[in-house]
Amino acid sequence: MEHSFLAYLRGRCRKLTQVTVGIGDDAAVIEPATGQQIACVDQIIDGVDFLSGKHPLADVGYKSVAINLSDIAAMGGNPTSILVTLALPNQNSTRIAGEVYEGILEAAAEFNLAIAGGDISTYDGPLAVSVTLLGFVDRDKAFLRSNATEGDAIMVSGAVGGSIRGRHLRPVPRLDLAQRLRHSVEVTSAIDISDGLSLDLDRLCAASGVGAELDTDKIPVHKDAELLSESSGRTPFQHAWSDGEDFELLVTMSQKDADILAGQELGTPLTQIGNIVGRTGLWQRQQGKLKRLSPQGYTHESL
Amino acid sequence: MEHSFLAYLRGRCRKLTQVTVGIGDDAAVIEPATGQQIACVDQIIDGVDFLSGKHPLADVGYKSVAINLSDIAAMGGNPTSILVTLALPNQNSTRIAGEVYEGILEAAAEFNLAIAGGDISTYDGPLAVSVTLLGFVDRDKAFLRSNATEGDAIMVSGAVGGSIRGRHLRPVPRLDLAQRLRHSVEVTSAIDISDGLSLDLDRLCAASGVGAELDTDKIPVHKDAELLSESSGRTPFQHAWSDGEDFELLVTMSQKDADILAGQELGTPLTQIGNIVGRTGLWQRQQGKLKRLSPQGYTHESL
Repeated sequence: MEHSFLAYLRGRCRKLTQVTVGIGDDAAVIEPATGQQIACVDQIIDGVDFLSGKHPLADVGYKSVAINLSDIAAMGGNPTSILVTLALPNQNSTRIAGEVYEGILEAAAEFNLAIAGGDISTYDGPLAVSVTLLGFVDRDKAFLRSNATEGDAIMVSGAVGGSIRGRHLRPVPRLDLAQRLRHSVEVTSAIDISDGLSLDLDRLCAASGVGAELDTDKIPVHKDAELLSESSGRTPFQHAWSDGEDFELLVTMSQKDADILAGQELGTPLTQIGNIVGRTGLWQRQQGKLKRLSPQGYTHESL
Repeated sequence: MEHSFLAYLRGRCRKLTQVTVGIGDDAAVIEPATGQQIACVDQIIDGVDFLSGKHPLADVGYKSVAINLSDIAAMGGNPTSILVTLALPNQNSTRIAGEVYEGILEAAAEFNLAIAGGDISTYDGPLAVSVTLLGFVDRDKAFLRSNATEGDAIMVSGAVGGSIRGRHLRPVPRLDLAQRLRHSVEVTSAIDISDGLSLDLDRLCAASGVGAELDTDKIPVHKDAELLSESSGRTPFQHAWSDGEDFELLVTMSQKDADILAGQELGTPLTQIGNIVGRTGLWQRQQGKLKRLSPQGYTHESL
């Protein structure tokens, strides 16, 4: 790892008003949040979350930021700055760091994020990128997982399934949609779909102590799920149900609020797929009967 | 990695007022900083920063928090919460996570830190622990590296050298000392000694565009440096000069402020070792002559 890389990086990082002291001191000095502060961290590791032999490292860098932005969107918050931790393989560490940072800097520019600091190590192991994202949310307005109530409409943004065909490297964090929702309705709960629609919906329900009745026909199946099903031996619905890394939003709100939204242009499609019910578990509405569904997806240990 | 570990961890994390929403949602919701916010991140990796075969994993966890607290101390700030990212070897991941967290929870309790969130992955690689620390500092009162001025006294806390004998696993972050200094004098610059007294002093001088004249006899040599020199073939002074991971503070202030402090009880010894000079580089005062010294230490790529 060449020391000159850090000098290069300092030159590449734009100076933004939210960070008073950035890279180059013992810690960053950041302007305080209006409302409340939001923070999250996600790491991605070669061989687990991506394959360095297959995926461009700039995409890996972009993804490391975008997945955190998706978490901030799921809280109804606004992002401001990031801290980046790289664990680099001993071989070619400077080249790898440079390529990863191309994507990080691209995401930072796109979402007006300051790079407030970070840490870089080289070691005998695979590339690992960990990003801490800081932001803010209006006081007591954060979308939590835990406030869904019986009768609420369950909505999903965009379309889901088959992200592994390539979309998972360049997820579109639903920050704008979250802000529009925050200003037009009362979101009762939210989560982003990182590990699979059904698994993340199940988590939201568990956190709220409720269940869900779904019109499974209404689940917006992504074209990628259809294309993937041609070779995977699974149906497009199965991909939509359990594939991870969609990074779409699952939100709940009163049925009345959902009806208000129905006629509005939100920039991103938002589809109602069912309602929250008191009985726990996920249920399929089928010709007046209910059939139990089992949540499936990638179990990832996020705190 | 057992899912029950996360449930266990949630139970072990104390609820503190600074974090409104902690582990268990997409992001943490944290009370805004008074003054300005401070943030830093440091990772430690098995085989690079510690040896899991030799060092208790609880110490590794403690260290991962303490080294970040040392950075906050070097900024004159107050810590409030942490986010913890673990990359765990596939084998025995739950046991390892549990042992590392024992030390993290111990440090969190000792310094009243909320565990606001984190991420856990398992992979084919060595244990890596990355901690992001959030805190605050009074507006425009952060100690930077860049404001040392010609004539300033250079002070070092505690004693340095030989930390590898064991002290490096349980560093004492100089948070209290930093706060006392902040309230009694004007600290012009500060850095914590992570990579070696001479290397970190050289960094401080470079950031401030100045040099340092040192009374090397006054450098407080730790007893560990003496003990280590019995077998290392190096002098105690050489250890004090270049050993890393002391996590003591190097601070500068006007000579007048340094003289005021001389009679005060600060809780931690603070020793003047020289003065800032306009000529760049590190210099030894010896019988009225100046001899150039070369900074030595562990080069670690912190941003």
